[in-house]
Amino acid sequence: MPPDRSPGPPVSFICVHAGAGYHHPRTHTALLTLVSEACLSGMRNLLSGTTSCSAATTATNHLESSPLTNAGLGSNLTIQGTVECDASAMCGRTGAFGGVGAVSGIRHPICGAVAVMRGDMQGPGICGLVPPVLLVGEGAKTFCAAQGVEIVQMRSLITDESQTRWERHMRILREAEQQEGERAKKRQRKECRDKSPDLSEQSFPESHLNDTVGCVAQDSTGNITSTVSSGGISLKHPGRVGEAAIYGAGTWSECTPTVSIGCSVSGTGEQIIKTLFARECAKRCLKSDDVAESLREVIREFLDIDLIKGKERNVGVIIYRCELTADESIGDDVDGKKYIREVWWAHTTKSFCVAWMSSADKKPHARVSTLAPGHVMVIDGRPI
Amino acid sequence: MPPDRSPGPPVSFICVHAGAGYHHPRTHTALLTLVSEACLSGMRNLLSGTTSCSAATTATNHLESSPLTNAGLGSNLTIQGTVECDASAMCGRTGAFGGVGAVSGIRHPICGAVAVMRGDMQGPGICGLVPPVLLVGEGAKTFCAAQGVEIVQMRSLITDESQTRWERHMRILREAEQQEGERAKKRQRKECRDKSPDLSEQSFPESHLNDTVGCVAQDSTGNITSTVSSGGISLKHPGRVGEAAIYGAGTWSECTPTVSIGCSVSGTGEQIIKTLFARECAKRCLKSDDVAESLREVIREFLDIDLIKGKERNVGVIIYRCELTADESIGDDVDGKKYIREVWWAHTTKSFCVAWMSSADKKPHARVSTLAPGHVMVIDGRPI
Repeated sequence: MPPDRSPGPPVSFICVHAGAGYHHPRTHTALLTLVSEACLSGMRNLLSGTTSCSAATTATNHLESSPLTNAGLGSNLTIQGTVECDASAMCGRTGAFGGVGAVSGIRHPICGAVAVMRGDMQGPGICGLVPPVLLVGEGAKTFCAAQGVEIVQMRSLITDESQTRWERHMRILREAEQQEGERAKKRQRKECRDKSPDLSEQSFPESHLNDTVGCVAQDSTGNITSTVSSGGISLKHPGRVGEAAIYGAGTWSECTPTVSIGCSVSGTGEQIIKTLFARECAKRCLKSDDVAESLREVIREFLDIDLIKGKERNVGVIIYRCELTADESIGDDVDGKKYIREVWWAHTTKSFCVAWMSSADKKPHARVSTLAPGHVMVIDGRPI
Repeated sequence: MPPDRSPGPPVSFICVHAGAGYHHPRTHTALLTLVSEACLSGMRNLLSGTTSCSAATTATNHLESSPLTNAGLGSNLTIQGTVECDASAMCGRTGAFGGVGAVSGIRHPICGAVAVMRGDMQGPGICGLVPPVLLVGEGAKTFCAAQGVEIVQMRSLITDESQTRWERHMRILREAEQQEGERAKKRQRKECRDKSPDLSEQSFPESHLNDTVGCVAQDSTGNITSTVSSGGISLKHPGRVGEAAIYGAGTWSECTPTVSIGCSVSGTGEQIIKTLFARECAKRCLKSDDVAESLREVIREFLDIDLIKGKERNVGVIIYRCELTADESIGDDVDGKKYIREVWWAHTTKSFCVAWMSSADKKPHARVSTLAPGHVMVIDGRPI
């Protein structure tokens, strides 16, 4: 049986991210405001005594509602110009997980994921029927509707910006396909001896402008919930499910008797699925208190692993770690117990936007973390 | 770059399973014939020099085509009486993976999964577009149709037996729901002081009659492909995706310079997803040559892990391991090299049906492995 209390002081905490990718400097102010507001909205929940699940859902809802992020409203569009979202949530104390994949017309995909997670938390139902941990497409939508999750016209999730971005990307894709077709014809007629350039190394100028959003929250009982929500890759094939819906890939929470961990991941879904990135980060940080070194190892492996094709490898992660300690010289002293609490973020992309807040803080801390030229990763963190 | 040859003698091998569950003795003869034929169909491919992918696909097609199995034709039906299948395939040499989830109207879901895997094998396309590793629902069907995968009327995958089973299960479920409703009313009126029995411990009398199918094949270049294909849980919610589609859960193949592994898993999808069972088995058996002990560890953890709710935990796995050895006293001697090759199967369910065949064998070996009373698992294996 999971303990009634997970390690963690009666001081609550929340951190959020607005995606690993490239955020143009002109968007930084708006993004910093957004992630700060998301933190605050979740923290208001926590201070009023709600659960980490409720707080993480509120904060993620806030991020999904912004057209600045690639989640919910303003999501990247599929190659057919439709919105299909992925999201998942995990509860640290119970290990319950819920994911929704390739869902259209759900205003807050994370609410769908949380509804699935609640079923998993309850366990087998009548006649031993095992509740799902992943629901996709139309079936997911029917389930969400029955659970009271808000259903909207898919069209209402498309913004002018996401429509314009889709049109630009489609034009670039069609031009590239045409060029490739002409080169192939020339090669056939042997007019062109050069090997055609590897078009897979090219990418859309703004393909990583917006990415996945997510949250990790710890409530005053010590429990942790982590979330992730994404509109997926621009021009993806309909029905494509990315890391945000997949167990072990986009999010992880785990509360052990001495350490509690939560993390939320962003980046190229297929690469993150193949490295089960969230689970890997969390498991390493459960074993070691050197979060920076653990993250460095996991990202180094991510950059080197043969399972992923292509040079461009995109990942970003926020991780929160809370450890009960016997060391009198360090950590917070709450109720006669000592805790070491840290928040970390790491990314291989040009930028990553994060914010965090403890209930002891007056206001959130927010950053657009950027990759210095010549570097392959950023790893940074703060004690709480 | 992966090597042109994976460890493995120029002697090919195939093993298949027809699910972990309960197979009534009156079906054993037909099942043994089926798995033997599936082995033979794949082996004919291997002997004619095709790849492990082609052979594994052929053998899985054979199993999907049988109304005896819960995959393709004769799949369990959803609570709405529809067929929705999951399948995946993984290539050991490249690590390429493809999955399809909750797909309706695809005669051979494994062919869809292999089509997705081929895209993953090619890597990023024009403009750096990353091919999907998991496609679901209608989007998956459109993709499959474009790739030449056979599309059929969903109705044609429903057999008289699967329809009758669905009707029986629906009747049992409705009766149980009615009983539960009456008990709840009595509790409200305080007429009934007894706690109602835990209906989650009950299950359909034949819910595990048929389960997932799968295959592991090694071709004469040493490469391994593993597959898995499933109709999922009886009366599942539409849109539910089980382990058969999920990376690391239902299937794993990996070829290292000294050891090659392939495995295919069957059982209760949500439980297998939460333990990433295929990956876990394969990783342990890559590190240790004691396959039985590795399987015992993984199954023991599966039975004990807090992440899974409910007592009834169903899993079955076939695993093939091929190791290059310097020990002169053991193994096959082929082309001046020594190989130790083993096939193993393990299950916690009442029965598990397997068959295997080396290109040096005259005919397949087939078993319905059964759990002895009082035991919690079966672990058995053979040298090849």
